Amino acid sequence: MRKLLLLSNSVLHGSGYLEYAKDYVIEFFSKNGVKEILFVPYANPFSQEKYTEKVRSELNKWGYIVKGLNEADDPHSAINQAQCIFIGGGNTFLLLKLLQEKQLIEAIRNRVLNDGIPYMGSSAGTNVATVSISTTNDMPIVHCQSLEALSLVPFNINPHYLDSDPTSRHMGETRETRISEYHALTGTPPVLGLREGSFLHVRGDVATLGGLSAARLFVRGKPCEEHPVGSDLSFLFNLVDSA
Amino acid sequence: MRKLLLLSNSVLHGSGYLEYAKDYVIEFFSKNGVKEILFVPYANPFSQEKYTEKVRSELNKWGYIVKGLNEADDPHSAINQAQCIFIGGGNTFLLLKLLQEKQLIEAIRNRVLNDGIPYMGSSAGTNVATVSISTTNDMPIVHCQSLEALSLVPFNINPHYLDSDPTSRHMGETRETRISEYHALTGTPPVLGLREGSFLHVRGDVATLGGLSAARLFVRGKPCEEHPVGSDLSFLFNLVDSA
Ligand SMILES: [Ca+2]
Ligand SMILES: [Ca+2]
Repeated sequence: MRKLLLLSNSVLHGSGYLEYAKDYVIEFFSKNGVKEILFVPYANPFSQEKYTEKVRSELNKWGYIVKGLNEADDPHSAINQAQCIFIGGGNTFLLLKLLQEKQLIEAIRNRVLNDGIPYMGSSAGTNVATVSISTTNDMPIVHCQSLEALSLVPFNINPHYLDSDPTSRHMGETRETRISEYHALTGTPPVLGLREGSFLHVRGDVATLGGLSAARLFVRGKPCEEHPVGSDLSFLFNLVDSA
Repeated sequence: MRKLLLLSNSVLHGSGYLEYAKDYVIEFFSKNGVKEILFVPYANPFSQEKYTEKVRSELNKWGYIVKGLNEADDPHSAINQAQCIFIGGGNTFLLLKLLQEKQLIEAIRNRVLNDGIPYMGSSAGTNVATVSISTTNDMPIVHCQSLEALSLVPFNINPHYLDSDPTSRHMGETRETRISEYHALTGTPPVLGLREGSFLHVRGDVATLGGLSAARLFVRGKPCEEHPVGSDLSFLFNLVDSA
């Protein structure tokens, strides 16, 4: 059974790493008997080593053992032996490119969808859990083979979803306009705008919105909708683009 | 001789289409004897037809004839006959993908760099004039063959450059951080952050910053620099990534 915790972000203004979601993260891991986490630092363009060290030192405090995929001699066997996979944020293009180059997409999908190991993603790690990275906020600092991602869920997410600021004089597209540009194209899946401090918890085909903020849902050809914290969003597994 | 007018954006808050740059645009066209403009509406995901109509109705008022590349039976011959090319904003990925699919990259480069016809770009049209679209702000709504763009200049531009807001509680990367992620990678070219209301005017190897705002220059391995309006930025043609 699919077990996912897809976080909009890892750090909330004024709080520590994953702190805002600590209770949920611990519950997610405990329920699933996780003691050891395989962390994927590929999204970090500066230093995978330092990124893994930082996450390890934080999650050690919570009582978890953290192994970095960057530290594994054989990434495939690390994935095949993992109790749980956590992909952290950074640059989504770099992350997907490395997963593609190391041919890890199918291995991760297999562990999560067939073996049912828990998957946690934050920001870019949430983007790559969806159908594609077409709704990332990141700059395309590298070129990916394709934009197709892990497809652990049949829709897209926009993490760090940001409401437009009516007082702004900046003329760059709002987040909502950017998503409407995506939905101008036929066949594009729904996009869930996850505001900072919120997350989607998925167990099988049951998806629940958690955290601190409502989410904004964009479905091609339909008006967008607000869904409050606690909403059952399981219908996202059955939505078909009818537009 | 290369003649470029690379605008950060087309619309400034509270003003009409290209209005803030009207005097410069007219001077750019007049100096180069331009009466007829070939407009490229490929960046618009909603309607190329309406986009061309809008630009035509605006530039008609200024006394120019506008042809849309979307209206040409043969885009190649339209480019080969053009007096001047103007590529408008929208989604940079969609724009580059269509230029790649229709194999227009070399044709445009040839007209601009060898025949010396004037090129004007705005926003996405400025992104594609540079080395690559790696520093676009847009979402990757479609997949491009590669991120390599027209390379009319040997550096990148970030249009709609936005300063970070110290009062913001949003934790998504600032524009400066996004560009630093790009420059974490070896061999990446300089990036000129063009704030709204500003533009780069290029004549041969002479580049001048114009408009209303200073620009922020990012060179890999160096501290970033502010350059005021009127600055001679010709040194950008000689910068080599030494980091
Ligand atoms: Ca990011
Ligand atoms: Ca745009």
